[in-house]
Amino acid sequence: MEVKANGPMEKQLNSCIDGPTNPMVTPLLTDLYQFTMVYAYWKAGKHLERAVFELFFRKNPFGGEYTVFAGLEECIRFIANFNLTAEEISFVRSSLPSSCEDGFFDYLMGIDCSDVEVYAIPEGTVVFPKIPLLRIEGPIAVVQLLETAFVNLVNYASLVATNAARHRFVAGKSKILLEFGLRRAQGPDGGISASKYCYMGGFDATSNVAAGRMFGIPLRGTHSHAFVSSFTSPDEIVDKSICSSDGSSICEDFVSLVQTWLSKIQLTPSLRGIFGETNQSELAAFTSYALAFPANFLALVDTYDVMKSGIPNFCAVALALADLGYKAVGIRLDSGDLAYLSCETRRFFCAIEKEFGVPGFGKMAITASNDLNEETLDALNKQGHEVDSFGIGTHLVTCYAQAALGCVFKLVEINNQPRIKLSEDISKVSIPCKKRCYRLYGKEGYALVDIMTGENEPPPKAAVRILCRHPFNESKRAYVVPHHVEELLKCYWPGASGRAREELPPLKELRDHCVEQLDQMRRDHMRRLNPTPYKVSVSAKLYDFIHFLWLNEAPVGELQ
Amino acid sequence: MEVKANGPMEKQLNSCIDGPTNPMVTPLLTDLYQFTMVYAYWKAGKHLERAVFELFFRKNPFGGEYTVFAGLEECIRFIANFNLTAEEISFVRSSLPSSCEDGFFDYLMGIDCSDVEVYAIPEGTVVFPKIPLLRIEGPIAVVQLLETAFVNLVNYASLVATNAARHRFVAGKSKILLEFGLRRAQGPDGGISASKYCYMGGFDATSNVAAGRMFGIPLRGTHSHAFVSSFTSPDEIVDKSICSSDGSSICEDFVSLVQTWLSKIQLTPSLRGIFGETNQSELAAFTSYALAFPANFLALVDTYDVMKSGIPNFCAVALALADLGYKAVGIRLDSGDLAYLSCETRRFFCAIEKEFGVPGFGKMAITASNDLNEETLDALNKQGHEVDSFGIGTHLVTCYAQAALGCVFKLVEINNQPRIKLSEDISKVSIPCKKRCYRLYGKEGYALVDIMTGENEPPPKAAVRILCRHPFNESKRAYVVPHHVEELLKCYWPGASGRAREELPPLKELRDHCVEQLDQMRRDHMRRLNPTPYKVSVSAKLYDFIHFLWLNEAPVGELQ
Repeated sequence: MEVKANGPMEKQLNSCIDGPTNPMVTPLLTDLYQFTMVYAYWKAGKHLERAVFELFFRKNPFGGEYTVFAGLEECIRFIANFNLTAEEISFVRSSLPSSCEDGFFDYLMGIDCSDVEVYAIPEGTVVFPKIPLLRIEGPIAVVQLLETAFVNLVNYASLVATNAARHRFVAGKSKILLEFGLRRAQGPDGGISASKYCYMGGFDATSNVAAGRMFGIPLRGTHSHAFVSSFTSPDEIVDKSICSSDGSSICEDFVSLVQTWLSKIQLTPSLRGIFGETNQSELAAFTSYALAFPANFLALVDTYDVMKSGIPNFCAVALALADLGYKAVGIRLDSGDLAYLSCETRRFFCAIEKEFGVPGFGKMAITASNDLNEETLDALNKQGHEVDSFGIGTHLVTCYAQAALGCVFKLVEINNQPRIKLSEDISKVSIPCKKRCYRLYGKEGYALVDIMTGENEPPPKAAVRILCRHPFNESKRAYVVPHHVEELLKCYWPGASGRAREELPPLKELRDHCVEQLDQMRRDHMRRLNPTPYKVSVSAKLYDFIHFLWLNEAPVGELQ
Repeated sequence: MEVKANGPMEKQLNSCIDGPTNPMVTPLLTDLYQFTMVYAYWKAGKHLERAVFELFFRKNPFGGEYTVFAGLEECIRFIANFNLTAEEISFVRSSLPSSCEDGFFDYLMGIDCSDVEVYAIPEGTVVFPKIPLLRIEGPIAVVQLLETAFVNLVNYASLVATNAARHRFVAGKSKILLEFGLRRAQGPDGGISASKYCYMGGFDATSNVAAGRMFGIPLRGTHSHAFVSSFTSPDEIVDKSICSSDGSSICEDFVSLVQTWLSKIQLTPSLRGIFGETNQSELAAFTSYALAFPANFLALVDTYDVMKSGIPNFCAVALALADLGYKAVGIRLDSGDLAYLSCETRRFFCAIEKEFGVPGFGKMAITASNDLNEETLDALNKQGHEVDSFGIGTHLVTCYAQAALGCVFKLVEINNQPRIKLSEDISKVSIPCKKRCYRLYGKEGYALVDIMTGENEPPPKAAVRILCRHPFNESKRAYVVPHHVEELLKCYWPGASGRAREELPPLKELRDHCVEQLDQMRRDHMRRLNPTPYKVSVSAKLYDFIHFLWLNEAPVGELQ
């Protein structure tokens, strides 16, 4: 969807874009050297020179071969509202040498992003190394001031969305995935953005109330071990009455009803008598929780002992609820051998269903948590388990397996002159020129290869053969006849160009887009171990130009 | 320092405490299950029961044997301003089952932390597993609503402060440590709090302008590779004039002066002629930067080739500045073999000093960056290097080596009844009872052992022998005669108790405290590889009580 933006209309549209979600994202959220450089540009009279920068990463995270691009909306919110307040400028002045001239601070006062153009790949798209995720063009001084915030806003967002997508891939589509990471996240908005981007990457819900409110993500949660330990015995329950589900009757003593069921379970030989006395504080906690949430009863069953206490206590309460027409939701396991315990629990539930004729009891939901990650999900799959939902925290939100994505922001052109950044490490050589990027699809609908071209080259066409070259390895090249061609970079911030601006879709749409994108990738690129690299290429023309420029800039070595 | 707080005075004092640094830290920054539990407590009439929770971690991070406690001030800011707005309550209502009673939401509207007491170890203190960092006492419903935010605010803060302290330990006290992590941090306030807590843990400065402004942290930064690549040749420099340092004269053509010095360097045999033509765009960039910041010239020298281009170009500009009475600051290396390049650079600087008689030239600052971490600092030390300052980013701020600290928040007492949380994993069994905690020091001034006692036990005394027991291993115990005794938990939020409240010191003081604390630890606890564990113990009385309660709660196993 596009919103036509031109002339005066544009200003109006821009002002409709809210500021960044985190109010701490201001023009001062940057490295000091951006301001020192901007001063030096200004002093050299270069500050208005038109520069093109690209934001990209060099290596997919987590040993994988794909990345989910996220963070774009926050970048656009940032530039749509970019300007320095007098107070901010006064702080910048106090941080620079006192020799800096007054005129510079007047200049800072006037800058905004009305002359900046941002092209980007849509948020939630599957992306690959070297391909620009964003292409930012504008006066070099202004674009320089965007660098740090842009990289910050994209790095973690993309990393955690990718992590979520990887967890989903291992868990499979039929499981419910819950993000439970807020307390272990790297700070408050580490938690809030984890919730947002995990949802984008394919999670179903979060425990984080603030994120639920801000982004409309479904919320989930019941109770903790502290709730269980806070009770001592069912005797402390004062109000024992509960209305039946249809409102037709009142049970005056739910506590006794639960006790009756517990005795029945204890005396039933088919339940294999694995337990004697169950823990009374746990029973009191479950009973109280059921009295508070009779239609949403889900209990954490591992405070004392899952099979000896938690499960029989839970079943007693669930059966008492069933007598009143309520259907319990299920249980959560937060420790121990989750594969074994989930299977034992399922067996117990099924035995209850059979023994007492309670339809659906065997199918009750089993949620598992406790330091889960890709590996433990994979191990559970291999062992066999009966878990329906996974609550995943620490490893997911802190991206424990790899805590950073290395997005960079490189100058590729200034005053229409292509620039290259050399390095002895070939993977760090940047690809010069303002570019266009395309994804070429095969006839099965899978993506085949991404290709970058110079800005003015004719675009690849469906059914027309094109040579795709590895940017640095001359022997790696292939002819491709695409079934269809997708241009990747779209205009999200037209600046003064008068072009149409892409809308920023709601989170739910970004999530749908991401899930669809992941489906369009060949399975061998996605697998957890030894995935096949997806190919990223340049046109023959761009290849030649890169190598011309490289030889031009690199010093000739001398062996002594 | 303490501020006396009693009666009506108190309210006034509390209201003097600002809200959390990040405005996103609100009562909704919590897990949904806190609200469901609070509803269940309320429904059971238990919500006002007085509970004691402890926040602690179970294992030191990074394979080390110590942790720096941080995040306390943010916790106190949070509770000092804790209350739910009507809008927040309305969102909570919409997130809970519709069967929840109206009275509950009226109750939520009225809650604050005036009846909560928080005791804590001072921020910046070196701390150890199992010892409560915070002890929170109050109505169970209110304290439950604090859990997630407290754990979130302490976890990352302590983790990254510890990481900073570890980097400092390896780098040594004589080096300047700069935090450069904003762009790779886990989100905007991941970056801002990294800057804050790295400074607390012993760093000297940050590149993060927002953090500099918020917390008064010294700022550092010069220019990036993009600045260098944005120039093409010295011809593009229009304003070539520069005033001498003392204002006595004007050099009309600084560009020519630089060129003259470059030729001299090139023609000097003692500089070993390792270079021919240096890169002209780099020379232009350095010259421009020096024109902008003649008294603060620090150049990034690795855009093309450090020894063939960057260093000679830098020296030419620095020598030209010296002619005008300016002292250049130095260079930054951001790639390659930092040990080798720093030594070669130092040798070159010294040769220049000798050859051209410029005093101090050999001592110019060498800053190194590029994916540094504890290991690379250690390797540089072993190889020998000439680096004066380290700029550390990704590994530091994302805590790449271990991205999460596992702080937990456990119920230890309710209605004066001690509670224990069992687990099949012994390291997860919580230590019951409201406690007092002491650090016992030996006569050399080093900390010997921490000991926890029941609240009403007499405190350990200097020169009096006391038995310190391992909380779970009966054979591990030792008599200690402390030289002096420090009580660890102090009152930071007196609630309705009328006690005096500890002040929240400014960041600089917290940093000083932290540095002093680290000095008080025996070196063998601090070393990077195979450090000696610091002992954490309980009194004999608390030991007996733990084991009585444990046996009481644990089900007896049955081998079949």
